[in-house]
Amino acid sequence: MAMIRLQLKIELEYTVLEPGADFFFCIHAANTPGQTVSHEFLTVSQTQAYWETQYRSQNLGERCLRLEALPGHLLVSYQATVDICHHVTDPALVAEVPVRQLPLDVLHYIYPSRYCQSDRLYNFAVSQFGHLLQGHVRAQAICDWVESHVSYRHNSSVGTTSALDTLIERVGVCRDFAHLMIALCRAVNLPARFVTGTNYGSSPHLSPPDFHAYVEVYLGHRWYLFDPSGTAIPMGMMRLATGRDAADVAFATIFGSVMSEQPRVEVHAIEDRAHGWEHPTHTSMALSTS
Amino acid sequence: MAMIRLQLKIELEYTVLEPGADFFFCIHAANTPGQTVSHEFLTVSQTQAYWETQYRSQNLGERCLRLEALPGHLLVSYQATVDICHHVTDPALVAEVPVRQLPLDVLHYIYPSRYCQSDRLYNFAVSQFGHLLQGHVRAQAICDWVESHVSYRHNSSVGTTSALDTLIERVGVCRDFAHLMIALCRAVNLPARFVTGTNYGSSPHLSPPDFHAYVEVYLGHRWYLFDPSGTAIPMGMMRLATGRDAADVAFATIFGSVMSEQPRVEVHAIEDRAHGWEHPTHTSMALSTS
Amino acid sequence: MAMIRLQLKIELEYTVLEPGADFFFCIHAANTPGQTVSHEFLTVSQTQAYWETQYRSQNLGERCLRLEALPGHLLVSYQATVDICHHVTDPALVAEVPVRQLPLDVLHYIYPSRYCQSDRLYNFAVSQFGHLLQGHVRAQAICDWVESHVSYRHNSSVGTTSALDTLIERVGVCRDFAHLMIALCRAVNLPARFVTGTNYGSSPHLSPPDFHAYVEVYLGHRWYLFDPSGTAIPMGMMRLATGRDAADVAFATIFGSVMSEQPRVEVHAIEDRAHGWEHPTHTSMALSTS
Amino acid sequence: MAMIRLQLKIELEYTVLEPGADFFFCIHAANTPGQTVSHEFLTVSQTQAYWETQYRSQNLGERCLRLEALPGHLLVSYQATVDICHHVTDPALVAEVPVRQLPLDVLHYIYPSRYCQSDRLYNFAVSQFGHLLQGHVRAQAICDWVESHVSYRHNSSVGTTSALDTLIERVGVCRDFAHLMIALCRAVNLPARFVTGTNYGSSPHLSPPDFHAYVEVYLGHRWYLFDPSGTAIPMGMMRLATGRDAADVAFATIFGSVMSEQPRVEVHAIEDRAHGWEHPTHTSMALSTS
Repeated sequence: MAMIRLQLKIELEYTVLEPGADFFFCIHAANTPGQTVSHEFLTVSQTQAYWETQYRSQNLGERCLRLEALPGHLLVSYQATVDICHHVTDPALVAEVPVRQLPLDVLHYIYPSRYCQSDRLYNFAVSQFGHLLQGHVRAQAICDWVESHVSYRHNSSVGTTSALDTLIERVGVCRDFAHLMIALCRAVNLPARFVTGTNYGSSPHLSPPDFHAYVEVYLGHRWYLFDPSGTAIPMGMMRLATGRDAADVAFATIFGSVMSEQPRVEVHAIEDRAHGWEHPTHTSMALSTS
Repeated sequence: MAMIRLQLKIELEYTVLEPGADFFFCIHAANTPGQTVSHEFLTVSQTQAYWETQYRSQNLGERCLRLEALPGHLLVSYQATVDICHHVTDPALVAEVPVRQLPLDVLHYIYPSRYCQSDRLYNFAVSQFGHLLQGHVRAQAICDWVESHVSYRHNSSVGTTSALDTLIERVGVCRDFAHLMIALCRAVNLPARFVTGTNYGSSPHLSPPDFHAYVEVYLGHRWYLFDPSGTAIPMGMMRLATGRDAADVAFATIFGSVMSEQPRVEVHAIEDRAHGWEHPTHTSMALSTS
Repeated sequence: MAMIRLQLKIELEYTVLEPGADFFFCIHAANTPGQTVSHEFLTVSQTQAYWETQYRSQNLGERCLRLEALPGHLLVSYQATVDICHHVTDPALVAEVPVRQLPLDVLHYIYPSRYCQSDRLYNFAVSQFGHLLQGHVRAQAICDWVESHVSYRHNSSVGTTSALDTLIERVGVCRDFAHLMIALCRAVNLPARFVTGTNYGSSPHLSPPDFHAYVEVYLGHRWYLFDPSGTAIPMGMMRLATGRDAADVAFATIFGSVMSEQPRVEVHAIEDRAHGWEHPTHTSMALSTS
Repeated sequence: MAMIRLQLKIELEYTVLEPGADFFFCIHAANTPGQTVSHEFLTVSQTQAYWETQYRSQNLGERCLRLEALPGHLLVSYQATVDICHHVTDPALVAEVPVRQLPLDVLHYIYPSRYCQSDRLYNFAVSQFGHLLQGHVRAQAICDWVESHVSYRHNSSVGTTSALDTLIERVGVCRDFAHLMIALCRAVNLPARFVTGTNYGSSPHLSPPDFHAYVEVYLGHRWYLFDPSGTAIPMGMMRLATGRDAADVAFATIFGSVMSEQPRVEVHAIEDRAHGWEHPTHTSMALSTS
């Protein structure tokens, strides 16, 4: 077990150009047994805007903020203290779950999705990863393959870029690394899902705090964390929401005529040995929060 | 209201070549207030095979049959009597639901999926359908456009064919018509889902009873039926399962080394005016069963 | 016959970062019976660079400038006076050439190419344009369809964008309009080629002088000009080179580590009635220079 | 030097369903200094059909048979004796030609084409093959990579399948292997072209005589032979025509309503030591016929 306390602050700023803009935000920290949220504040600058927070998935503790904004400036600000309790295991002890034993609500994470077209990758994935020892180590091998065969480059992809594009062009951002890893996992029948969350900012220059996209793979009846882009310290990643791929879990989906500023994300890890809160560090152990 | 009684029989035949074949079948009629199932029988020829039926969605009355088969011959046979009660409305009275009023579990049916890449079709869909009167008539216009711009040809597509391929190549089977209609609906913010079901066999030669793929669009807080391939009489279509696209709702998903025979589907419509059971006929009215 | 005299100036500026940069430029005006070049000057700022001009096609009067540059600043400047003599015909009198009568060196312009995948557009092209009256009017109908169904937007496409992408996304720049028109022409067996040239700048704000991409279609044993983007006055377009698509005729192909400035293009039309030089104007007549 | 004598017979059989069918055949053996043709016979069963043979490229000795057929049965039969004189070199001695020294008519074989989208493969090709020793060995490494990473399966591809599809799906026929090898070569600036020819039938069961697709790469100012599908003995391959990819060099291009039989190809290698004619054998030497 590894316990991490994160202080999170997200600020999203927009200029609404016409009446009738609808926003669906996914900026609340997921609230689960493995990741508990306290001292949560949400402020919306438009006092007359209508908004409400709903569960998009009660099981997964995932929330959605719906907001109908008026023309003009809009600032949405979210702060929270989040305690993450990592289940830590020796990866060699984490087995794959045979397809026949997969719960039905997990089963659909082996199907192809918009940006993770696993249905076209069977031959490749089987020839590359099919012979490997099954278990967490195989998912890790896929993660490592993606990290070492794709280059990270800012602005190298667009919203419609998919795992196939990334496999061909070998360049992308964290979202693209995640999509390719997910597609390859599914192609060998490993349920894999896309996580949108935050990266706590392991190094100020290379990876400041930011929204982050990473992967969870279902192994040993848990969802284990993987960061195929290699840009984060997984122990410090915080989950906002999960889905089949980026189509499901944009941090903001906007309907209407709106100009967006660059989002501002701050994350601080609170180290306090007295309370058991560690500093996030790289580890070779398998991590899961659900 | 229109009431239809259907007698359904599905026979699936396989030769399992190696131990350890897993099947996930989606051949049970959905059991909902609008489509009630009675006198259901399932038989599996392998007496030693393990199988069980689970709800894949309790809300939608959709079931999944999991089966672990032994090597050798396998016959799975399902029979049911299904009563469908169509909600029948004047399409001119069925309005669209503004995005802001969509329930969260409906909202994700406007997102792109594996075979319905609506994210690349915004410009086209808006220029073609954006100016139309909103409501059921707009969904119908999309349905009609797809039917009249795509040609039906047996075996003209493969499992990986997507809505974009169909838009380019203008040829397909019912699955492809459905994917293209769904993608175009989502591109104008109409929630649309893929239905796998049966076509009761309106004409013995042109459209014998068979599995069928069609579309439901969320309008006026109901899901309305559309058949963009134009090969069925919608009133006689019966629902097995729904999903974002064909990736979610194959009638059979098979893991293992298996040879498949052509599935056999029989559907009869029981006309009995005394009980109120009509014969399925083409109608210009809007139909919904959920 | 319409005669146009253009004064052309092209300036390309680079910073070569490492030794060993090779450039292939396509910036010489094509020199043909229909487009004659006089008073041509080429200057290369690096006095020690090796360069030579070769014919890339003697038949088509197309030239290629090869240049091996040294590290540092590089300015390539080309000036020419170009007299274009348009063959002007009533489009109603220009027939298509049956495939069997196409010269072999024209025949390959009905085959698909990198960015003009006509092989996937047969059904669409035939259903949309197959029934039209054959001849220049059909090519014009394709040109008009592309212009009216695609939106011009700066920076909306990248180097790998193809006709299929443009057909799906309905947005592009002149290159994309040209690719889509070419693909559709070939799909109905009309030989079509890509032209890279200049747009003389019909209006200072909307279309300043610039490199331009347009289309020639083989009709009545000539190549006729079309501007599917609708951004130029065809009578003022000047040809640098032709090819199957943009893969063949980039104005600059660069091997090595080089930073590029925005190219500067100046084109002036010299009106001089005494010499017979007209001002380029829009016309409903069919134009050809070869 | 290795000399091979081949006896070639090609029979193509069609049923022309409507008047006005045009055929462009590419079934004449190329006639070059390295591959000389003697005793050539062409017979066309329709005595009233118009046909003629033209050079599609005089330089390359490539011919095209144009034929206008009448409705009914059509048999086109071609026989020839072909002497192939292979230039045989130690591959370690064959260097690459720097881009700056490429002849202009070779240069365009580094550009992307319909089925060889090298423009999307730079990162992959450079990371996989960029660091290798330059020369014939690098082209051979690309050839070997394609052969070992793609599986040969009959009917696994269609006419629109491209190198990108093959890279993703890892399965194909000889045409697909050739396209992928070509695309990867071009991505590292190696000029590569597609050859349509015959495979002399090294083993009666695995590879009977048939049309074959293979690759030539420009190295050391010659075009060297490669067979990425690994299904032929390169010394026994005979060239019909070359092009950028399969779009250029189909053995038959048909305009009109026609039913085709399976083509029949017979090739015999004449071994006659007295004349210097060897039996084609596998060799580790580099082979070129042009």
